[in-house]
Amino acid sequence: MKNVYENEKRLLHGGDYNPDQWLDYPEILKDDLDLMKLANVNTMTLGIFAWSALEPSEGNYNFEWLDNIIDDIYNQGGRVILATPSGARPAWLSQTYPEVLRTNERREKMLHGARHNHCFSSPVYREKTQALNYKLAQRYKDHPAIIMWHISNEYGGECHCDLCQENFRIWLKDKYKTIDNVNKAWWGPFWSHTYSDWSQIESPSSIGENAVHGLNLDWKRFVTDQTINFYRNEIKPMRELSPNIPITTNFMADTDDLIPFQSLNYEKFSKEVDILSWDCYPAWHNDWERTQDLASKVGFINDLYRSIKQKPFLIMECTPSCVNWHNVNKAKRPGMHMLSSMQLLAHGSDSILYFQWRKSRGSSEKFHGAVVDHDNSKDNRVFKEVSKVGEALDKIKEIKGSMKESKVAIIYDWENDWALKDAQGFSKESKRYPQTLQEHYKYFWNKNISVDVITSSQDLSKYSLVIAPMMYLITEDTMDKFRNYVKNGGVLVGSYLSGLVNEADLTYIGGWPEVLQEIYGIDVAETDTLYPKDRNSIKFKEESFEVKDYCTIISKKEAEVLGTYEGDFYKDSPSITRNKLELGISYFIGARTNDDFIEKFYDGIVEELKINDLEDFISPEGVSIQIRENDNAKYYFIMNFTEENKNIEITNSYFDLVSEEIISGLNTLEPYGIYVLKQNK
Amino acid sequence: MKNVYENEKRLLHGGDYNPDQWLDYPEILKDDLDLMKLANVNTMTLGIFAWSALEPSEGNYNFEWLDNIIDDIYNQGGRVILATPSGARPAWLSQTYPEVLRTNERREKMLHGARHNHCFSSPVYREKTQALNYKLAQRYKDHPAIIMWHISNEYGGECHCDLCQENFRIWLKDKYKTIDNVNKAWWGPFWSHTYSDWSQIESPSSIGENAVHGLNLDWKRFVTDQTINFYRNEIKPMRELSPNIPITTNFMADTDDLIPFQSLNYEKFSKEVDILSWDCYPAWHNDWERTQDLASKVGFINDLYRSIKQKPFLIMECTPSCVNWHNVNKAKRPGMHMLSSMQLLAHGSDSILYFQWRKSRGSSEKFHGAVVDHDNSKDNRVFKEVSKVGEALDKIKEIKGSMKESKVAIIYDWENDWALKDAQGFSKESKRYPQTLQEHYKYFWNKNISVDVITSSQDLSKYSLVIAPMMYLITEDTMDKFRNYVKNGGVLVGSYLSGLVNEADLTYIGGWPEVLQEIYGIDVAETDTLYPKDRNSIKFKEESFEVKDYCTIISKKEAEVLGTYEGDFYKDSPSITRNKLELGISYFIGARTNDDFIEKFYDGIVEELKINDLEDFISPEGVSIQIRENDNAKYYFIMNFTEENKNIEITNSYFDLVSEEIISGLNTLEPYGIYVLKQNK
Amino acid sequence: MKNVYENEKRLLHGGDYNPDQWLDYPEILKDDLDLMKLANVNTMTLGIFAWSALEPSEGNYNFEWLDNIIDDIYNQGGRVILATPSGARPAWLSQTYPEVLRTNERREKMLHGARHNHCFSSPVYREKTQALNYKLAQRYKDHPAIIMWHISNEYGGECHCDLCQENFRIWLKDKYKTIDNVNKAWWGPFWSHTYSDWSQIESPSSIGENAVHGLNLDWKRFVTDQTINFYRNEIKPMRELSPNIPITTNFMADTDDLIPFQSLNYEKFSKEVDILSWDCYPAWHNDWERTQDLASKVGFINDLYRSIKQKPFLIMECTPSCVNWHNVNKAKRPGMHMLSSMQLLAHGSDSILYFQWRKSRGSSEKFHGAVVDHDNSKDNRVFKEVSKVGEALDKIKEIKGSMKESKVAIIYDWENDWALKDAQGFSKESKRYPQTLQEHYKYFWNKNISVDVITSSQDLSKYSLVIAPMMYLITEDTMDKFRNYVKNGGVLVGSYLSGLVNEADLTYIGGWPEVLQEIYGIDVAETDTLYPKDRNSIKFKEESFEVKDYCTIISKKEAEVLGTYEGDFYKDSPSITRNKLELGISYFIGARTNDDFIEKFYDGIVEELKINDLEDFISPEGVSIQIRENDNAKYYFIMNFTEENKNIEITNSYFDLVSEEIISGLNTLEPYGIYVLKQNK
Repeated sequence: MKNVYENEKRLLHGGDYNPDQWLDYPEILKDDLDLMKLANVNTMTLGIFAWSALEPSEGNYNFEWLDNIIDDIYNQGGRVILATPSGARPAWLSQTYPEVLRTNERREKMLHGARHNHCFSSPVYREKTQALNYKLAQRYKDHPAIIMWHISNEYGGECHCDLCQENFRIWLKDKYKTIDNVNKAWWGPFWSHTYSDWSQIESPSSIGENAVHGLNLDWKRFVTDQTINFYRNEIKPMRELSPNIPITTNFMADTDDLIPFQSLNYEKFSKEVDILSWDCYPAWHNDWERTQDLASKVGFINDLYRSIKQKPFLIMECTPSCVNWHNVNKAKRPGMHMLSSMQLLAHGSDSILYFQWRKSRGSSEKFHGAVVDHDNSKDNRVFKEVSKVGEALDKIKEIKGSMKESKVAIIYDWENDWALKDAQGFSKESKRYPQTLQEHYKYFWNKNISVDVITSSQDLSKYSLVIAPMMYLITEDTMDKFRNYVKNGGVLVGSYLSGLVNEADLTYIGGWPEVLQEIYGIDVAETDTLYPKDRNSIKFKEESFEVKDYCTIISKKEAEVLGTYEGDFYKDSPSITRNKLELGISYFIGARTNDDFIEKFYDGIVEELKINDLEDFISPEGVSIQIRENDNAKYYFIMNFTEENKNIEITNSYFDLVSEEIISGLNTLEPYGIYVLKQNK
Repeated sequence: MKNVYENEKRLLHGGDYNPDQWLDYPEILKDDLDLMKLANVNTMTLGIFAWSALEPSEGNYNFEWLDNIIDDIYNQGGRVILATPSGARPAWLSQTYPEVLRTNERREKMLHGARHNHCFSSPVYREKTQALNYKLAQRYKDHPAIIMWHISNEYGGECHCDLCQENFRIWLKDKYKTIDNVNKAWWGPFWSHTYSDWSQIESPSSIGENAVHGLNLDWKRFVTDQTINFYRNEIKPMRELSPNIPITTNFMADTDDLIPFQSLNYEKFSKEVDILSWDCYPAWHNDWERTQDLASKVGFINDLYRSIKQKPFLIMECTPSCVNWHNVNKAKRPGMHMLSSMQLLAHGSDSILYFQWRKSRGSSEKFHGAVVDHDNSKDNRVFKEVSKVGEALDKIKEIKGSMKESKVAIIYDWENDWALKDAQGFSKESKRYPQTLQEHYKYFWNKNISVDVITSSQDLSKYSLVIAPMMYLITEDTMDKFRNYVKNGGVLVGSYLSGLVNEADLTYIGGWPEVLQEIYGIDVAETDTLYPKDRNSIKFKEESFEVKDYCTIISKKEAEVLGTYEGDFYKDSPSITRNKLELGISYFIGARTNDDFIEKFYDGIVEELKINDLEDFISPEGVSIQIRENDNAKYYFIMNFTEENKNIEITNSYFDLVSEEIISGLNTLEPYGIYVLKQNK
Repeated sequence: MKNVYENEKRLLHGGDYNPDQWLDYPEILKDDLDLMKLANVNTMTLGIFAWSALEPSEGNYNFEWLDNIIDDIYNQGGRVILATPSGARPAWLSQTYPEVLRTNERREKMLHGARHNHCFSSPVYREKTQALNYKLAQRYKDHPAIIMWHISNEYGGECHCDLCQENFRIWLKDKYKTIDNVNKAWWGPFWSHTYSDWSQIESPSSIGENAVHGLNLDWKRFVTDQTINFYRNEIKPMRELSPNIPITTNFMADTDDLIPFQSLNYEKFSKEVDILSWDCYPAWHNDWERTQDLASKVGFINDLYRSIKQKPFLIMECTPSCVNWHNVNKAKRPGMHMLSSMQLLAHGSDSILYFQWRKSRGSSEKFHGAVVDHDNSKDNRVFKEVSKVGEALDKIKEIKGSMKESKVAIIYDWENDWALKDAQGFSKESKRYPQTLQEHYKYFWNKNISVDVITSSQDLSKYSLVIAPMMYLITEDTMDKFRNYVKNGGVLVGSYLSGLVNEADLTYIGGWPEVLQEIYGIDVAETDTLYPKDRNSIKFKEESFEVKDYCTIISKKEAEVLGTYEGDFYKDSPSITRNKLELGISYFIGARTNDDFIEKFYDGIVEELKINDLEDFISPEGVSIQIRENDNAKYYFIMNFTEENKNIEITNSYFDLVSEEIISGLNTLEPYGIYVLKQNK
């Protein structure tokens, strides 16, 4: 039996709707319904921060306003994603039960305020959220409008209160059994940091323990597990009462670079949600990169969030214009909203949902872009562009559920990122693990080659090429897996700063791990860390390429040397190698390069593997082509991420679902222009 | 009956004198009296930080030293401004009554130390300061030396202790009556921030509530009111016992840019003082701007502090050489002290008072410039320049009480500044409201056109031109006032980022306020926020002008389009407009420009309004001419703010009060040179 | 009778060894012994952070593992420096006695963690450390392996707990006797900061008192004295039980510039240790300075640590490759370890000891360079370079105990540095007292002229030239001493920012101190502080030299004017002066210059004093020659601090102890190459 979301045939278009802010403005609530129709939206996410409205005082619930709005939306054909409101608690709750508030890492008790400021351990907070969730589940489980539960909002952060300390110790006991095992794993005797009793263990703090990397790493693992544990408590009523309504919670990305969210291991969390959804806020039209460079980063992160569940995901939040929390909040130029929406779909989203439907009138998010502006007008530019996107989504709704087929995978591991960032050594500023993956990814994005961004615990066997740079923390299992992958015919790319520590952040001793030596046919003698202005270069395929930041000094064993250093005391020694291992091949990139090398390097591999098979299309740089497919058809999303007209040559004839025209031969795609071409199978 | 200050015919020259630091050095105290005569000073401000000397232990007062010094000063013709010492409490007070110390916004109790570290609510602090003030008032109210009370010192800062929280709640109850009104005004339901009880409200905190702009704004209002409330408690003895001695407290400016002090609404506070005084510390001779550019900022802030009370003010503190708290503390070059003193007078000051008379021997201000240096010498360069200023002040003392006549007003609103700075959205770094006003002001300063810098609650009817850019927060009353002003023949200039929110920081809904649409004859469709490196340009009067940061996308209604954008998706749309409304005209500047546009723009208006009427003078850039006048005469301050000789052409003959010569025809003003020319009426 | 260290004839080679981290890895402990032989090391420092291993629970000691390791080392010819482990306490200690942990300046109680986080006042901490030290002293005092005690580790930091506050008050009472004396010394009446009772005094705090410079300065003095007091408590068992084993503790340097450690007055502390040892970590091969420029700074700091005790010192820690706590941790290039080791010896070290012998497997220092890497291999490049250094040390071991003879002294005073850094005034960023000394020092280093870096309390009579710039804080005693030095024929160089305050940080009043006027034959009228981009210049010996930051405006008295300003309002006034005073000469440098002036300036003095007497050697820039000598011979360390071959011309024949060849005539020293030439007396 399909669940209620699967029964929905439309791509979701709509977003966060907070009528609880407007209950005093009945005319606005009425306008909303009319405007929803004009905007071609079909799905509203309700109740995200409505706790105060739903339970104005302890135990006194008020659902009537919500009943009415859900009915109104449903009555005009809309659907509802219903949220649990645990992301922000009412003032009465903080006042009555101050223990629900967080303690920060300096052991300061936080005051009531802002949001996401609740302890994940607090029994009373768990009790109160679950009680409300029961009410919600009971009341709305059978409402035909409801297609999904949206649990809380953007989970994140951590609490260091006594209860969390105690839970951390329980978590550790469960993992390590004895305190001696903890001391061994965390290299206890260093600086005399040996624990003689569990009660001595406390979470990392800038005014206490902060030098024990094993502790830091386990604390981060605990924070993910404790967050999930809280989430499980939240969803219990939903699972019990509404097994047919799928559950999600909205994930995030971090920083201007759109790297994966750092505070939680989403690989673990993603197993807990029925469908992954996330909030995507790229800084389009910024002044430090080209549109196409940013688009490549958008591709990377979406491919990760699609790949870790290997299924289509939802964009739970995006903005039709600007946000309010970047340093500079610039509006999307005309056409960008269509283009950027299509890109999200192209990489696997089955929705375009906004934060938010209508701009708030007050408080800190009142200038965040929304479908309906303060002018309350359907003639607003942004409103009209949203409406156009709604039209287009309707035309291409058949893509719902379709997937992407990738022969290339890039490995991203949360724990590796945590450990490497925390590592004392090398260069503080130039670790850049996720950014390095983005640079490798960009090559393939530029060539319109589909990539899965997966973790090392996922299946590798279906990929022709697996790219795993900077695997600082790598388990023995992962090394074995890599070896098997290569032996069975896979092509693996590794790099500098790999193979240093195990899952406890303890270094491998006795030299570079033997399995890696076998895989790559080399040994690593030293890692040279360079100052920001230092440069070296490598000779590769008759050309010279600049390198920076890190240079691995390599002892060649079975490998073939493809590139050598041109300077410094390791001049003429190997920098790029290739190793045949049974049926497969492994490449090792010893130094951090620029894009020019990456292009040259992968050009050879791609040609050899013949994984560039978009034969029907000749397109210039800046135009991205991404494919989704299902049993019946392939869908080619062709997107111009430049501010210029671009010529696309198309060998066969294709039907453009959006313009509803046949496209063939030489075509000019306008700036930010798109096609969604369908090819029946 | 005139008060004792009005009876003083001299311009005040002198400053802060802290003999309580030197009671162990009788020879220094004697030297002081001799040096005062040589320095041509006439007024000493006494007792600012003398609490420990006046009340060495609780209830034990010691006024003898002060009696003697006041007598000594008086006996040689001097006058005294007597301070209340509440700016820094004795150690015994903090020790006996720790509740007098502040709690910071992180809810940390501050320790005794530094200064200005006292709670404005503390009953015991109020009691103790008032008790001492009674003693002072009783003892000195009839002393003929005393011409003014100087209450405390540079009021500022805030306290978040439980008492202040309670007072804040009382203030809110008084304003809003019901908690429901608070929730409405602060947009409570956003992030579930609804209060169900007054006791839940706490002041903003970085570890608590910080996202509710209405709360932030009301907290700032409360801080001003609570400071004034404390001040009223302080002055009670003075008002009771010495009604004929006027009262002031010294105001400040903020940052290197000399923008209006941000922590208190001086418009409100200024109503509480009999005469406004302030502490003026420009960073002359810095390495980031020309002398004349800084001089224009000095003009701006002094014109504000003159205009908000519409009367002459006092410079309560300035330095004859350098300060000690800038990043770089460079001494005034020869001539600069005379020039900069004359500028302060030219803009409305009736005093040049220094911090301080004599450099301290120890502690943190010992290298702050002073009249008497550690060398204790009358041959010191700074001492001689002070003495020369004293001579000049004596020659021009007839200007005392004279005012400036301005046909141009620029609007500065503290609450608008607070709200705009706090706004989440647009660009964090480029709000620059006060700096933008300075840029408009500079045009008029360069053209020697007198400007009043007023708040929007002041009378507009006397101005030919009112400039009100970036009125982000604007009340309906202010909009009506602007409309009336224009309808009655006024010329109004407005700009981008105007008309967004009301006094609760709630946005106007239903589009740009209709009153503004009527005034400017336009509607605002969007505000485009640009990245720092982004540039657009506008075509205006056949020329192209660069714009940056903000571009308003304008729908023309009745207005005439004067300028259009030259780029981006709103190319060719209106950027500069002009609207006739009954008898008046309104201009709208849609984008942030550079000085070149501002010059071109105002040139036209000034010519039309014929407000540039200095017909007798032809002077080059960098020479400032400011006029004060009274019933008998006009006084032309001509000041060369450049490092070069400048030629001034003067059509008529004028008497220079300083050189005591007739000045006429072509004259060369040396670097930093000045004239004070008198023209009888 | 010589002590056990003096009986050791070898230069110490080895370093920190932490077998307590490896007790679970018996094969590693075995490898260590074998590798020590191969590495040519002879001395291991044991037990630095071994408290948890030595006393796993309160009162239960375990020395067996340590016994065995000491025996093993001794049995293969090694020696041991035995540490007391107070630098990091076990978790059980913090848990049982939380009072041992520090309170920071914000009065926050620190949590257990990191290291060096213990209160120097805590009676229980003193009791526990002393108890363990008794055990160590009793057990090992007669072990023939032990040659030295290494007390704690890198003492530093401060505690603001109630006990420390009380001790601070006792310290103040002892110094000042009456609270009135404190008020006088600290300029109490400023800002009403008068104390009426000792109990009101608290240590400086960013949330309390921070504006009283006298308090700040006395607090820093107290911190040094309290640290020494703690150290004396620690060494009591050693002095009692093992009078023949000398005692040291490892000192440090600060920042990338290698300036003297700022938190403690090492001049005082050095009197408490039998031999000074320190931890030297220059950032070789960085990207902001030439190798030779950094080498000059390394020379400066080592010459200071040699000169304050006027005897050879030990390098207790250095790295054979990189550290892990710089921003960028770059490995030493081949040859650099030999070169940099030889430089340390050349400036007076009798050891090359490493942190650490073997890289940790876990926790925060696992990537700090060490002799044995994670590869556990004798073929590691770093291991081999260490082994080569060990060989060389053995060849030159006869230098042990030899000293340097300097005719030039540069004065560095810790208290002057503290006071100047704390001074409010001048320019915050450009104080740069230690850096200025480094610039003067560099001239002599470049010319291969030996320099002692001493404090002003040391004997000056043996120097031909004493350089004392920026003596902001100078006592009357020091001024008298300087005067006597000059009168008796010395040559003294002083500069801007001198003679401003006495030992209480109170300014001299009545002008620049008369003794200084007499010494320099000038008076100081003003100190002009410039903005970073401001430049002036001086004319000196027919040439023009740029000056910046500070310009003293000088009134010439008896002095001869050597240089005059070329710009600003003091154009043509004296900037560089020379004064004959009885048998000696004093120079005054009025402004901050660049290296070009310093070179020109000292060239004349050096020629006049004939203190450049390396007649046998002609060497280019970048090659450093340093001499150590004893009764029998002189040892010339010739070191190429460039990345190029350098020609050295040597008039006579010398035996190179390292290559064991005769060196004479024209020789080419390879990049980073060294000679250690012996000349018998």
